Amino acid sequence: MALVVQKYGGSSVADAASVLRVARRIASYRQAGHEVVVVVSAMGDSTDELIDLAAAVSPDPPVRELDMLLTAGERISMALLAMAISDTGHEARSFTGSQAGVITDAEHGKARIIDVTPGRIRGALDDSAVAIVAGFQGVSQTTKDVTTLGRGGSDTTAVALAAALGADVCEIYTDVDGVFTADPRVVPSAHRISLISHEEMLEMAAAGAKVLHLRAVEYARRYNVPLHVRSSFSERMGTLIMEGSPSFPISPQTFHRPRSEDTPVEQPIISGVAHDSSQGKITVTGIPDVPGKAAALFKIVADAGADIDMIVQNVSTEITGRTDISFTLATNDAVPVGRALQAAQVELGFQSLRYTDQIGKLSLIGAGMRSHPGVSAQLFAALSDAGVNIQMISTSEIRISVVTDKEELERAVRAVHSAFGLDSSSGEAVVYGGTGR
Amino acid sequence: MALVVQKYGGSSVADAASVLRVARRIASYRQAGHEVVVVVSAMGDSTDELIDLAAAVSPDPPVRELDMLLTAGERISMALLAMAISDTGHEARSFTGSQAGVITDAEHGKARIIDVTPGRIRGALDDSAVAIVAGFQGVSQTTKDVTTLGRGGSDTTAVALAAALGADVCEIYTDVDGVFTADPRVVPSAHRISLISHEEMLEMAAAGAKVLHLRAVEYARRYNVPLHVRSSFSERMGTLIMEGSPSFPISPQTFHRPRSEDTPVEQPIISGVAHDSSQGKITVTGIPDVPGKAAALFKIVADAGADIDMIVQNVSTEITGRTDISFTLATNDAVPVGRALQAAQVELGFQSLRYTDQIGKLSLIGAGMRSHPGVSAQLFAALSDAGVNIQMISTSEIRISVVTDKEELERAVRAVHSAFGLDSSSGEAVVYGGTGR
Repeated sequence: MALVVQKYGGSSVADAASVLRVARRIASYRQAGHEVVVVVSAMGDSTDELIDLAAAVSPDPPVRELDMLLTAGERISMALLAMAISDTGHEARSFTGSQAGVITDAEHGKARIIDVTPGRIRGALDDSAVAIVAGFQGVSQTTKDVTTLGRGGSDTTAVALAAALGADVCEIYTDVDGVFTADPRVVPSAHRISLISHEEMLEMAAAGAKVLHLRAVEYARRYNVPLHVRSSFSERMGTLIMEGSPSFPISPQTFHRPRSEDTPVEQPIISGVAHDSSQGKITVTGIPDVPGKAAALFKIVADAGADIDMIVQNVSTEITGRTDISFTLATNDAVPVGRALQAAQVELGFQSLRYTDQIGKLSLIGAGMRSHPGVSAQLFAALSDAGVNIQMISTSEIRISVVTDKEELERAVRAVHSAFGLDSSSGEAVVYGGTGR
Repeated sequence: MALVVQKYGGSSVADAASVLRVARRIASYRQAGHEVVVVVSAMGDSTDELIDLAAAVSPDPPVRELDMLLTAGERISMALLAMAISDTGHEARSFTGSQAGVITDAEHGKARIIDVTPGRIRGALDDSAVAIVAGFQGVSQTTKDVTTLGRGGSDTTAVALAAALGADVCEIYTDVDGVFTADPRVVPSAHRISLISHEEMLEMAAAGAKVLHLRAVEYARRYNVPLHVRSSFSERMGTLIMEGSPSFPISPQTFHRPRSEDTPVEQPIISGVAHDSSQGKITVTGIPDVPGKAAALFKIVADAGADIDMIVQNVSTEITGRTDISFTLATNDAVPVGRALQAAQVELGFQSLRYTDQIGKLSLIGAGMRSHPGVSAQLFAALSDAGVNIQMISTSEIRISVVTDKEELERAVRAVHSAFGLDSSSGEAVVYGGTGR
């Protein structure tokens, strides 16, 4: 029937009961005749426990050994899951990242996948076995040492295997029902998105939607892997991330064929509202407005290892010939960047440095805004009506982001969600044909 | 200087403090210029905890997956140890059994080592790093799956690596001071043996001395690997297991050269008294005393998967033409063997089957008994003086074993230990030259 890659996070395999529940779901797919590859994270908090152990023996453990230690976590969960599946009457074989052919560079703790050679996984499928693969880990092409992929690593393992195996769909199981039009903790009327494009999801993830990591979405977009983000606690459909129409199982029994028209239903203008309150803003005041100064400034920021997000440069006054530059960055990066800039004050010639973490970013995402002018105006009007002041603005083809005062952020999100008609009593804003259920 | 393989058991790395203590010892060997390969078991009770996890998800977990699960234990301890060593200023690299080149057959849970290709270990030593290797595990030559070596596996890993690397000595660290002339819990006057041959140690291990597993001693004898069994909680010398004289470090700083005479000091007649109360005895009564019956009986026992130890066949009476056969076996094997024999009662023609676990085995071991006749007589006299009745007897070239009533076993051990002059106030019975300290 279909080849399905499923990824279960730590909360989905937190204890024996959860492992058994996941095993039953996998068995139902096998029962329906599908080939199943499962990528699994370490159980619940076990990774944190291993990190605590490391801290107890060494203040600054070597990264090679930290990777060796942390990869024990998935080894445990994948073996337990294979055992539980075996009890359902279906064969299951677990594989480490190395055995599964997840080849990476040698950057311990944040390795990048450079190749996937899933020969043993394909072999297990050919033997009618479920293949269980440890997420988050691989093996270095050069040193043959065990590596970990860093944040978002397990999602990325699943997408990479799905791409290498030519899977019909990569299902990402989590503890929520899918991707929502806004964070339901902030916007009670937010609802699940049924279908969203890779590009929109990429913007959502970059803008702060936490359910999928940016890196996994990028990988899925590059190799055009259909994703299905859904809950491991229910049988409900979640969020499909793909272009076009699904032609893979949504449940073990229900196979979704491409629509005969072969065109997706009309997309809504706006998919969702994301927000992110984990950034801070640095303002460099009185920097000479001459060519090369901004370049010098941002080279120093980059050398400090920080990614910057939004940048605003004031129009300089002709009298002073100086300007102010503000930019946002992760609050974690603020201290090293601040130090580096302070050290370069004479070179850059600026007057003062200001920092605040009391900002929030709101992003409106929708592929439909490409063909619908006036979305920005509508956004600014909604914020104005809500009495929210805008500090910075940035846009892409399918996204508009604004920075507001942190205290006003949640109110702004609710106002924008409502202004764009995303509030819905049906619990289904973006209906994909008749598949939503 | 020397190449030393060290093996630390679970009790030696039970917690962070223990790991740090072990790391300091390893660092002292590196400081003295020795090359060090370390084989480590899983921390404390962590293997039992993993087995409990497996039991929680499956009543009968597949052996392949059980091996995958259990090998997570050493992965954790070896990575932590490498981190702790790294903090002492010496480089350390951890390796799984597979990475260390421990090649086994595919018998999960009780794999045998069939080859050791320690190329990466040699490479780490050449880079002046300490190599940390996960004990108890390897990789199947045919399936490339992870295997575990079963009981005594970590000791065997250490000996196998020492043999493959041509190590000067294999140090087995444990929670006791070495091999004793008898179990000190039974014989308070028992003391540490300084030097014992591989052959004698093999008999001691087979006869119930628990400090070293039979399998590791066999491997060491086959490849003539000098062993040093000692405590990880002290700097004292332990028990050397080798032929001839040591020419390797006993402590990081003390190097022991071969004696100029190149002959060992005169060996004592008796090395020690071992005992084993983990066996039971099956008696088959009234079996026809005709050729082939004993063979048929023991084929059934072997087919039930049991190893038998001692066998006694009574002289048959000419009137009945029947005899009784008794044999000892591990109490674990008693139920399956009893069932198999019961099922074959008609075929074998015996009258009844009796079983007791109320027996104990005492073994006297010493290479010197080869050249000293009369040891058996002295043993029987000692037991007789102590009022201990002998049920069965078996002998090898350097061992005499007797089966007694379980209740009399400990008294028998004390009496024999004393009768052969092993009680010692010096705490040093078998003094090897001047190395005991």
